Amino acid sequence: MTSAVEVVTIGDELLLGYTIDSNAAHLARTLGESGIRVARRATCGDDAGDIAAAVREALDRTGAVITTGGLGPTSDDKTKESIATIFGRAMRLDDAVWERLQAMWKERGWPGEIPISNKQQAMIPDGATILTNRHGSAPGIWLEDDRGRWVAMLPGVPREMRGMLADTLLPRLVARVNTATVVRSRTLRTTGIGESALHDLFGDAARGVEGLPLAYLPGWEGTDLRLTVHGVPADEADRALDAAAAVIRTLAGHYVYGEGTTDLADVVLADLRTRQWTIAVAESCTGGMLGMRLTAIPGSSDVVLGGVIAYDNRLKRELLGVNADDLAAHGAVSEPVVRAMAKGVRALTGADVGIGITGIAGPGGATPDKPVGIVWLSVETPLGAHAVTARLVGDRGEIRQRAAQGALNLLRRQLSP
Amino acid sequence: MTSAVEVVTIGDELLLGYTIDSNAAHLARTLGESGIRVARRATCGDDAGDIAAAVREALDRTGAVITTGGLGPTSDDKTKESIATIFGRAMRLDDAVWERLQAMWKERGWPGEIPISNKQQAMIPDGATILTNRHGSAPGIWLEDDRGRWVAMLPGVPREMRGMLADTLLPRLVARVNTATVVRSRTLRTTGIGESALHDLFGDAARGVEGLPLAYLPGWEGTDLRLTVHGVPADEADRALDAAAAVIRTLAGHYVYGEGTTDLADVVLADLRTRQWTIAVAESCTGGMLGMRLTAIPGSSDVVLGGVIAYDNRLKRELLGVNADDLAAHGAVSEPVVRAMAKGVRALTGADVGIGITGIAGPGGATPDKPVGIVWLSVETPLGAHAVTARLVGDRGEIRQRAAQGALNLLRRQLSP
Repeated sequence: MTSAVEVVTIGDELLLGYTIDSNAAHLARTLGESGIRVARRATCGDDAGDIAAAVREALDRTGAVITTGGLGPTSDDKTKESIATIFGRAMRLDDAVWERLQAMWKERGWPGEIPISNKQQAMIPDGATILTNRHGSAPGIWLEDDRGRWVAMLPGVPREMRGMLADTLLPRLVARVNTATVVRSRTLRTTGIGESALHDLFGDAARGVEGLPLAYLPGWEGTDLRLTVHGVPADEADRALDAAAAVIRTLAGHYVYGEGTTDLADVVLADLRTRQWTIAVAESCTGGMLGMRLTAIPGSSDVVLGGVIAYDNRLKRELLGVNADDLAAHGAVSEPVVRAMAKGVRALTGADVGIGITGIAGPGGATPDKPVGIVWLSVETPLGAHAVTARLVGDRGEIRQRAAQGALNLLRRQLSP
Repeated sequence: MTSAVEVVTIGDELLLGYTIDSNAAHLARTLGESGIRVARRATCGDDAGDIAAAVREALDRTGAVITTGGLGPTSDDKTKESIATIFGRAMRLDDAVWERLQAMWKERGWPGEIPISNKQQAMIPDGATILTNRHGSAPGIWLEDDRGRWVAMLPGVPREMRGMLADTLLPRLVARVNTATVVRSRTLRTTGIGESALHDLFGDAARGVEGLPLAYLPGWEGTDLRLTVHGVPADEADRALDAAAAVIRTLAGHYVYGEGTTDLADVVLADLRTRQWTIAVAESCTGGMLGMRLTAIPGSSDVVLGGVIAYDNRLKRELLGVNADDLAAHGAVSEPVVRAMAKGVRALTGADVGIGITGIAGPGGATPDKPVGIVWLSVETPLGAHAVTARLVGDRGEIRQRAAQGALNLLRRQLSP
């Protein structure tokens, strides 16, 4: 049996663009990790004819189809019936499913008897296998014909879909298909350098390393570098990724701060925790974003004291001790002010590390010599004090995100020079 | 000519699930607003055969296809050639496009001559129409046969795709197709009430109002209610939406805080601006998130002074004047502490309005009587002081988001009782 499947996501909300199709991406990544390739993806609305047409075409091409959506109790939900028609199966009430639905109703403490309309969810095509749903009421369904062509119907609610995929469908597929080969990737996260500068830095390795293609994924956190390998056994894939990642780490040096989905805030907090240092922030243009990022990490309370959102200049003076003459002479977005912010928040809170951020996030507030995107960032630690300026690109939100990330990176570089 | 199109999004990154397909949603929404329906959507990888197959099938079904992706200068980019083959067209160098690419290279101040590999971007199928790209180098392409079947090829970079759609493709489509009818929707934003409680509140209107179906879209900001109408002329659609929205507003009362993508922080700031009141925040478990949300609004500096991130209890005492006995007797997540936080930040900053947030965002930190998700929220304004507690659901990130939203809503309700 082939290790390719097609995915059909079903729902008017998806087709109308009101809902972003995150299920499709999750399915592709999860299946790929187990060596199952998504050969094609289609999306159709909640129309019985459209569903049947899309699934029939996918079955004819690939013989293996996963659908999401359209399994709920309402009249919009037509997936089961449409696909049963393709397979020439009748619908029947599944007593076990109906009993489970009634039991769920009671367990949740809902009043009265379960509405009869929910019986629709217990209607199952003849000869189908039930895929258990731990997170919701709609059961998944596996339907297969005598030629081994199959459709697996998953719910559209992401949490339910993900649970059913992990618990039930993926083990079933891995047991069936040829998973001698896999698709695997590794992501190295860089920050403090742009995509094209990385290109130049890498020279001949810019397109790929050790035979693996290299993708550049720029964003406000920095540029992620993704290596991908496919069509080889799992252990060979891991060896190839290890070798290529080592080359990238050598070439990119200190710009690499982690792998996968590592958060720079987590990297910095882990370092501070080792030193038993505490940290406080003094934020102007970011308005609390840096504090939010640091405290987003579970268990951050042993390192993060808090800080001051000094959006107004009066708070910069009164709480952080920024010099009024410096504010008047250099403006709020200046080196003396940002240095005083980091120093001031250390003094105010008693933290070992202070971080200061001030800048012009736009769209208003620019002056002839201070355009939108100008920021000053500073750190002061027992190791010393540093300040840098940068001209950041993007809209107001991106400039603020890049400023918070830049401040974290300034601290990271001071801690690991 | 029909007003239905199909969309084919192209790219290995999409198919592998590494990139979420936001282009597809944007296309559907934007086309729908102009009465053009997306009948089906497909996604395929960067393989010339797969691209040709997916586009050919869509052409056969619907005769009108929009593609995104695969127009770049690298060897991965096969969209133009694949689709030229379907139409039986040869590729030729377009001198005007090539001159523009050379000019862009110079304008951007890049060194040396443009690499010859970029010439690939100037290769255009015979008889194609160029769709200008204001935001990037890859031109879009319109290809049409003598039966009026067409494919419009847009770039995959979202900013480039959106610009080209708005500037060039949409006006062209609107001029061609029958746009006597439209798809339109209206979203009413509610907060402070759950999806099922809204259902109960609406009674017979829960499924739909004035003949329009009603969708419930719950999230951490609250539950959005979306009314949709399709298949009618634009003015009739607007009248139907107006009438249904008025019914919903009556039924949902003060739970409605805005329409469309209105941000609750913006609603609150606008009210404060009218009163010429300033605001400061005192945040514990949200760690700066509320300050970040308030300062995310452009021009917020006339209202928002800033505040204190009092993550550590010592800062609650020393900066906000929270009573040490209250902390000891009731804990940091308690009514006396949250009230003292709002009062303290007003005193510290001189703001007219103080907001306090303290809670247990998890996953750690719970006690037998204070489970994860417990928050206390407070506001103190010249109108008086209020505090509420809530048990919020979700992971650490969601609990923090719901806490910040809840605090904003507490203030909104005090301002407009």
